[in-house]
Amino acid sequence: MHAQPHPLDQALALTPTSSGHYLGRTTAAYWNMVGPYGGISAALMLNAVLQHPQLLGEPLSLTVNYVAPVAQGDLLLDADPVRTNRTTQHWCVSARQRASDGGEQLTTTASVVTALRRVTWGVSDAPMPPAPEPAHVARASATFPVEWPQRYEMRPIVGGLPKRWDGGGNASLTRLWVRDAPARALDWCALAGLSDVFFPRVWLRRARQVPAGTVSMTVYFHAAGADLAATGDGYLLAQARAQEFRGGFFDQGVQLWNQAGLLLASSQQIVYYKE
Amino acid sequence: MHAQPHPLDQALALTPTSSGHYLGRTTAAYWNMVGPYGGISAALMLNAVLQHPQLLGEPLSLTVNYVAPVAQGDLLLDADPVRTNRTTQHWCVSARQRASDGGEQLTTTASVVTALRRVTWGVSDAPMPPAPEPAHVARASATFPVEWPQRYEMRPIVGGLPKRWDGGGNASLTRLWVRDAPARALDWCALAGLSDVFFPRVWLRRARQVPAGTVSMTVYFHAAGADLAATGDGYLLAQARAQEFRGGFFDQGVQLWNQAGLLLASSQQIVYYKE
Repeated sequence: MHAQPHPLDQALALTPTSSGHYLGRTTAAYWNMVGPYGGISAALMLNAVLQHPQLLGEPLSLTVNYVAPVAQGDLLLDADPVRTNRTTQHWCVSARQRASDGGEQLTTTASVVTALRRVTWGVSDAPMPPAPEPAHVARASATFPVEWPQRYEMRPIVGGLPKRWDGGGNASLTRLWVRDAPARALDWCALAGLSDVFFPRVWLRRARQVPAGTVSMTVYFHAAGADLAATGDGYLLAQARAQEFRGGFFDQGVQLWNQAGLLLASSQQIVYYKE
Repeated sequence: MHAQPHPLDQALALTPTSSGHYLGRTTAAYWNMVGPYGGISAALMLNAVLQHPQLLGEPLSLTVNYVAPVAQGDLLLDADPVRTNRTTQHWCVSARQRASDGGEQLTTTASVVTALRRVTWGVSDAPMPPAPEPAHVARASATFPVEWPQRYEMRPIVGGLPKRWDGGGNASLTRLWVRDAPARALDWCALAGLSDVFFPRVWLRRARQVPAGTVSMTVYFHAAGADLAATGDGYLLAQARAQEFRGGFFDQGVQLWNQAGLLLASSQQIVYYKE
């Protein structure tokens, strides 16, 4: 008997069609309200780079722009190494879908920087905040009527989904233990996916559910591949906070530490909201 | 007699060559050690979008990737509105230079999102930190042997350039009042330029000058055009801090408030450093 692949690996599957071109496919397991979970789209864009035979080094930076809705079905991905330097490599990535008129429609663009990390002086100035052990924090029950949150084991410490949508919110900070569900060894794509795991900050800040969607997200990878391997299928302490809600857009800043207290990634996104 | 244009306007000058294509040129006024100041390159990429006849709305997000060194001379810019939605527009921008072999070399890529801002509920969760009036803070004298810092009036409050490079640094926070020099009314391109105005965090954190250069920078614009107009040629309170220095790369998070305390922009960048 063959074990079923992990839902994340199913969602990340890419079939090369020619050099730098891939065929992917949306999966029901990561479906959001009207399209795939943004984190899974980010992870898929990154995977197109990681699968490329000309890859230099490891992910350093990823910016994903959600340019149009993604429908259920095939995705045509292109990953182009537009410049290779001695220690960094710059990538332009795009995803398209066939439109009903037979043409192709751009759905997502990304820029990726990969790099050779070196042994240098280093220091951490964003220490992991104190938190109870994951085993001492209750797992959040599913409160979204959508599929993707089932793919994450979330154990909220502060700033969980409001229990009452009464307009009484006063902060935008969420802090939780999180890992893929079922548990899976951490890799670059999983880490990219986890960077988007928070419900919209505007829901928390207002204790009110309004339409919201990520417009652009950037992830910086601070760790090396060996750090991800050492993290294994352990929990990440994930933290998100907004700075400014204005004119129909808010930002979200994110940090992701492993249980050893190492900052694996930080992320920013700018999000559309209504009303 | 005609007044000399402001150095920023000279640096931002673009001549359209065909739809979405422009000719620009590096200027000595913003020269850094081995190429143009990164903030001016960011501003120029943004200007290619702002000059485009199909522009929708105002800047919301800008990611600039510094893919290769920029030499003194002409720059060939392309700005492509890859997707226009009802309230957002997505742009891919590139800059190239003619190589000595007659070919063209990609130097910079950018993605830009422009958007129609709407009147919505809003709140500021990143209040401007207390600071003495700009007039009560001494202007930093020129301590870099490069040109671009002369184009900014900087009044450091905390975290100025170390007086002694003795390895004794212990924090990465810089806070200063800053504006263009000579003073100039704030606009989107000036704000993009100001987002990169900090010397490398690794210099401050270590009190040691090591080679460093921005790899990728993202700017989120939180303000509307009317807010920029109201800011005029006033000072911005600019703040920068790093989270993690590791493996030859560190991040820098930035906030820019106007004197009225409005968060105009926030920014992140990932920076290469040596040793």
